[in-house]
Amino acid sequence: MSATRTAPGLPEIEEARARLDGIARVTPVYRSETLSKLIGRDVHLKAENLQRTGSFKIRGAYNKIVTLPPERRAAGVVAASAGNHGQAVAWAAREVGAVARVFMPQDALMAKVDATRSYGAEVELAGPALEEALAAAQAYAAQTGATLVHPFEDPLVIAGQGTIGLELAEQVEGLETVVIPVGGGGLAAGIALALRAVLPRLRIVGVQATATLPGGSGFTIADGIAVKAPGELTSSILDRVLDDLVAVEDEEISEAIVLLLERTKLVVEGAGAVGVAALLAGRVGGSGPVVPLLSGGNIDATLLIQVVRRGLAVGGRYLVVRTRVPDRPGELAALLDLLARERVNIVEVEHQRESVGVPVGETGIALTLLTRDRAHCEQLLAQMREWGYPVERLD
Amino acid sequence: MSATRTAPGLPEIEEARARLDGIARVTPVYRSETLSKLIGRDVHLKAENLQRTGSFKIRGAYNKIVTLPPERRAAGVVAASAGNHGQAVAWAAREVGAVARVFMPQDALMAKVDATRSYGAEVELAGPALEEALAAAQAYAAQTGATLVHPFEDPLVIAGQGTIGLELAEQVEGLETVVIPVGGGGLAAGIALALRAVLPRLRIVGVQATATLPGGSGFTIADGIAVKAPGELTSSILDRVLDDLVAVEDEEISEAIVLLLERTKLVVEGAGAVGVAALLAGRVGGSGPVVPLLSGGNIDATLLIQVVRRGLAVGGRYLVVRTRVPDRPGELAALLDLLARERVNIVEVEHQRESVGVPVGETGIALTLLTRDRAHCEQLLAQMREWGYPVERLD
Repeated sequence: MSATRTAPGLPEIEEARARLDGIARVTPVYRSETLSKLIGRDVHLKAENLQRTGSFKIRGAYNKIVTLPPERRAAGVVAASAGNHGQAVAWAAREVGAVARVFMPQDALMAKVDATRSYGAEVELAGPALEEALAAAQAYAAQTGATLVHPFEDPLVIAGQGTIGLELAEQVEGLETVVIPVGGGGLAAGIALALRAVLPRLRIVGVQATATLPGGSGFTIADGIAVKAPGELTSSILDRVLDDLVAVEDEEISEAIVLLLERTKLVVEGAGAVGVAALLAGRVGGSGPVVPLLSGGNIDATLLIQVVRRGLAVGGRYLVVRTRVPDRPGELAALLDLLARERVNIVEVEHQRESVGVPVGETGIALTLLTRDRAHCEQLLAQMREWGYPVERLD
Repeated sequence: MSATRTAPGLPEIEEARARLDGIARVTPVYRSETLSKLIGRDVHLKAENLQRTGSFKIRGAYNKIVTLPPERRAAGVVAASAGNHGQAVAWAAREVGAVARVFMPQDALMAKVDATRSYGAEVELAGPALEEALAAAQAYAAQTGATLVHPFEDPLVIAGQGTIGLELAEQVEGLETVVIPVGGGGLAAGIALALRAVLPRLRIVGVQATATLPGGSGFTIADGIAVKAPGELTSSILDRVLDDLVAVEDEEISEAIVLLLERTKLVVEGAGAVGVAALLAGRVGGSGPVVPLLSGGNIDATLLIQVVRRGLAVGGRYLVVRTRVPDRPGELAALLDLLARERVNIVEVEHQRESVGVPVGETGIALTLLTRDRAHCEQLLAQMREWGYPVERLD
């Protein structure tokens, strides 16, 4: 790439903001009463999941593409992405009237492929993983003269993401701490550069997913930050602008997604929920008003179902229990009646007549019950044993 | 109740707005590109699901409670509710420093009981259904002198909900049609009274859930509008201010919830999604910019999972198919390999060794597959049959 590899300063971020005026949404900030109570300090959520295309990525992509000289713009743009960046490049290119091609790995979710296409990009599937898609994008750029839009290693992209910092400084009075997801690092670098310039004493904390750290499994539900490491440019910035860099587990991210969904009515993807997860886990530090950045909301509905189920199970809000009743009329009704008297909401009752391990003359039953918390789960299991039912917890 | 039973006028709604200033959020309006494309006209969403407590109800409840004379306020307030109204009364009473008691039916979801308590109300469970809770609330009011806050049959409550109309008139340029959920009718009455006064030529459409109409099953996922009929006062208003009153099915509501969740990143409860459902079903009429009111977001996470699964299935985004393979090593792998080559995302594979109807020597398999749409489901089923697998669609 031809872009100079130096960190953008406040003037570059302010220029980006002027370019994005009327293009990107100034996303709202909400104080969350539930989170403020849980965490013991004022929590304001920056709802960047409500940004156009569902993530912050259009800020950087647009700032990059709109500043291309006319002859470069005419040659089109290209990106490699399995998710938000591809959609953002497609969207931003359409806004400025440029042609976009996006290379995606073959197993990209069809919903993401369709969304990228719906913004007018040509999508090409290349290789099993993102590395092959990136190689294909580079080859395409070399061949056609199209400009490769990097997701983070570019001062113009970083400056675009930094506009969120300028908004935050105006939106939250008395702001003391900001918590930002870190994958490639462009978002955190941009926001921190902006905020260091206007609020020098602010505490700025980055959050990664544990699974993406060296030695981690590599798989995380926070796919938006599933990058092996920040880039060279972004690392050099993060090293000097972050006060701390912490990590959260997928289970913690799941719980944060469920909490945001239930209490704030916002759909937030894994990467967007890491800030809230870090706050709930007590890893952020500092005091006073804190803003976790909800960076995006592009979570596949099928994954969301799984995450919510898991989050509810982890939080003890859900109990799947297997038991057995004599295979006689009225026996299941008797069990359900006992549960009803305890005022337990039953979500699902499943007969498992032919299950392994169920003696002849008995019927296996799987019950899905709504519970209040982990203690309530334990209490219910004990109660069912006291009634004489053999119980085994499944979820 | 002592309140006079006449419809509020524009001055009363403007007074309510002044009282709610700094108390209720002025909820944002977003243009949805996806919905605008699908419906063929400009669609702007009024995101009242982002209101404090997750629904519009605090507008009316606060306007009622804050205008009680000091001696009435000191005697406290009482409400009967299984959901949003109870939370709103609890929240509004706390805001003005009044004591609140909320009677809820015994099978109310624990999440709603807990939320109502968390706003400081005393919750009492009374009777199997809302009717008994209401009787208990009335008895309590008679006994203690507490004021019963009715969810809709009260001019002050209606005026409070009407403040949404005043916001809308300012937020959406060229507004031509508004679509409002109708349960008890307080919300629609208030908004329509406000909008008729400031935009007389506007088209105003109310939406009910089919299941709540005479002859319907009574059960609907839009529990927020599961009222047998609007009240006397609200009916008399709706009769003269609505241009049309239409109804939507639960399946249509499910699809709308999923669409809002996936594309706009907003969690909207059943009642809040009926406007979008009516638009998608082509039942709204009129032309030009249209605003469906997303009245609330309080949907239980467990119900949300079921709704999303159903919505995805109805939309053909999800295919659960049962088949059989010979009970030999490699046979399941062979099937999965064929599916992988078709680039089908597999969510779940379930062995059903002991299923009824599976011959000895074969294994039952239930596959959950991600699909694009209904046509893609059909295509996949045909393809699997062509490969020689017996297939039965489950979901």
